[in-house]
Amino acid sequence: MNNDLKEYVTSKTRAAKQASRKCSILSAEEKKQALKRMGEAIWDQRRQIFQANKADLENALNNGLSSAKQDRLLITDRRLEDMIQGLNSLAEYNDPVGEVISSFQRPNGLKIEKVRVPFGVIAIIYESRPNVTADAAGLAIKAGNAVVLRGGKEAIHSNQALVRAMTDGLAKTAIPVEAIQFIERTERDSIDILIREKNTVDLVIPRGGAGLIRRVVKQAHVPVIETGVGNCHIYVHASADLDMARSVVVNAKTQRPSVCNAIETLLVDQEIADEYLPRLGKDLVAKGVQVRGCEQTCRILQDQGSLEIEPASEEDYATEFLDLILAVKVVKGLEEAVNHIRKYGTLHSEAIIAEDASAADAFLNRVDAAAVYHNASTRFTDGAEFGFGAEMGISTQKMHARGPMGLRELTSYKYVIRGNGQVRE
Amino acid sequence: MNNDLKEYVTSKTRAAKQASRKCSILSAEEKKQALKRMGEAIWDQRRQIFQANKADLENALNNGLSSAKQDRLLITDRRLEDMIQGLNSLAEYNDPVGEVISSFQRPNGLKIEKVRVPFGVIAIIYESRPNVTADAAGLAIKAGNAVVLRGGKEAIHSNQALVRAMTDGLAKTAIPVEAIQFIERTERDSIDILIREKNTVDLVIPRGGAGLIRRVVKQAHVPVIETGVGNCHIYVHASADLDMARSVVVNAKTQRPSVCNAIETLLVDQEIADEYLPRLGKDLVAKGVQVRGCEQTCRILQDQGSLEIEPASEEDYATEFLDLILAVKVVKGLEEAVNHIRKYGTLHSEAIIAEDASAADAFLNRVDAAAVYHNASTRFTDGAEFGFGAEMGISTQKMHARGPMGLRELTSYKYVIRGNGQVRE
Repeated sequence: MNNDLKEYVTSKTRAAKQASRKCSILSAEEKKQALKRMGEAIWDQRRQIFQANKADLENALNNGLSSAKQDRLLITDRRLEDMIQGLNSLAEYNDPVGEVISSFQRPNGLKIEKVRVPFGVIAIIYESRPNVTADAAGLAIKAGNAVVLRGGKEAIHSNQALVRAMTDGLAKTAIPVEAIQFIERTERDSIDILIREKNTVDLVIPRGGAGLIRRVVKQAHVPVIETGVGNCHIYVHASADLDMARSVVVNAKTQRPSVCNAIETLLVDQEIADEYLPRLGKDLVAKGVQVRGCEQTCRILQDQGSLEIEPASEEDYATEFLDLILAVKVVKGLEEAVNHIRKYGTLHSEAIIAEDASAADAFLNRVDAAAVYHNASTRFTDGAEFGFGAEMGISTQKMHARGPMGLRELTSYKYVIRGNGQVRE
Repeated sequence: MNNDLKEYVTSKTRAAKQASRKCSILSAEEKKQALKRMGEAIWDQRRQIFQANKADLENALNNGLSSAKQDRLLITDRRLEDMIQGLNSLAEYNDPVGEVISSFQRPNGLKIEKVRVPFGVIAIIYESRPNVTADAAGLAIKAGNAVVLRGGKEAIHSNQALVRAMTDGLAKTAIPVEAIQFIERTERDSIDILIREKNTVDLVIPRGGAGLIRRVVKQAHVPVIETGVGNCHIYVHASADLDMARSVVVNAKTQRPSVCNAIETLLVDQEIADEYLPRLGKDLVAKGVQVRGCEQTCRILQDQGSLEIEPASEEDYATEFLDLILAVKVVKGLEEAVNHIRKYGTLHSEAIIAEDASAADAFLNRVDAAAVYHNASTRFTDGAEFGFGAEMGISTQKMHARGPMGLRELTSYKYVIRGNGQVRE
């Protein structure tokens, strides 16, 4: 491992650790003011930020990045305002730190309080969206943490400009500027070093593609929260209201196909497949959705003139298309639907459309996912839609946090115990 | 990696995963009955268990294991009864699964419930105490999980006999016998395979020495909860009631020195060191405690006739002695005490003895540990002492669970969302 790079990364994490001690004891008002100053500084330095963003976009063009990736990089006026708006609304949220989660007294007189505290230092590893720089820093700081940001190299100039603005903003507040650390060296190794810094980093959250997340999970010594990969399903039960099943499936697939809470596979009960699929087929044609169907699906939909359809492979069922492609499988019933989801699901969001309440309950009970839905689109798995405000991502693991992660999920707790000389017998 | 061993371990974890699905939807009564049957079967098969334990003890003797390790292996009548009693009291605890942690309705009509659910499959990696086999299986099953046990090779026969009894007990219940899996192959590699089984294992908890825990944290792909290492401190503030400070320090050091919540270093405010240390010295002599002192401590205690004392090294401050040895350092005040704990502490249990409430609050606020105490012994960091009943260990990390881990800490949650056709705009 590159010693110079290691020294560089650990100097950042050590500074963050030092700052985190101050952050952990700040008042709610001090944090609120800091978030506002961060937003104001982004506004004040918008010219520099747009200029830096232009440099990133030029590099992207020169390096032949896809237009989708270029779009992710782009900071528009609207996106800049959204970042500032995000920081301002965070400022107004209740401070999660110091909340007494529970308290009790023991027979020996010890008073025990379980108190919410910050994690300490949170590292965020992300790819090309520069807005993550502002969102992640804001969330981490509001929850009393210091943050170490390791963004993708494509957005390096934009991220630098945003971090400069935010730390300039902090300089006028009680929060040390060292509370926001940015890893400017974007060699891949800097990730591996960062995620092994157990002494100075308390939590790492990778945000990005499946490859990045897999790599971090495997290499990290620091505790990780896995986010984002969503191979989500809707199961249309025999008792479903078929009109509702049409509108929900169309919404979950097409309203924004590139996101993790969109569905990738539709499971249709055989009892209603002949009636439902041809009707849905019309909607899919209208929305330009391609189908990868099981044998029965292909048979039922063969006469659906303009529908693009091909046979589904095993791999299709395992794929997060993130595109206007839908795998469709006819299943014998709830049991087969649940088993299919167990086999291919990623513990993200799963839905059943059914009028039969006991079938719905069985599904909600038996399917293991962060969010399980009855008669609603999977697209609601989102911090804002849940009413949590901003989110740091959507956890797909079962430890610590599940589903949308807001401020509370960026905290830990400790037990505060007060006595008058108690000793153990 | 050994393919045959990998196949062996994954056959166990796959079976556990399969069983966990059934376990997750069992009723409270079914789990209660299962725990009772497990305890009864241990009683019924006590002869085979004692015989197996004898075989382990003979091997221990032949292999020259220390008497401390032999003692850890030993299953006495009392210890067997404690295991059964542990299972019986777990049976009576409230079922944590299904608890609605919070619920809310969104403006669009969606009803969101945050519901406590089992983790799924929990792997426990432990060393030589056979009672962990019964305690861990009981806790995991009560919380609706399946469990994969990987005990130390010294206790292999005892563990096999205990597992046989418990699974025989399960055979008469609604819980599949596959809910308790035991890894009989004790090659080291079986640990490495187990902790990478991300598809079938949801959580791994290592219980044992610092070496085992470090290894698991570094190698695991499955989420880990770190447990146990406790380099704990007491800081005696200038305002302390010195009699209280004596009894609490003596208790925290000597009541059971081999456990993680015993203290290893005493920090004494310089204002009271001349008065306090000689008095404490007498207690330490009486209890046979050796001192590793800072310069000032050595000077103050030099006339304390029979006290064994030697200069403290840097390493002493970093050592979890787990023995009748106490490092002692005179500090300038709270700031130095807090900094010393930051440098050497392991986020376990830390205490201040003080009559000055604002000093106590500053300490409780600023020290980052699972449990922070004012005027009480650190020895109370324990599931039973906190009133949680049995515990799966004491977490020293900040993610998911901190401090004593009881039933609740062996669960996750999911969001259950009910609608009437809602789609996202």
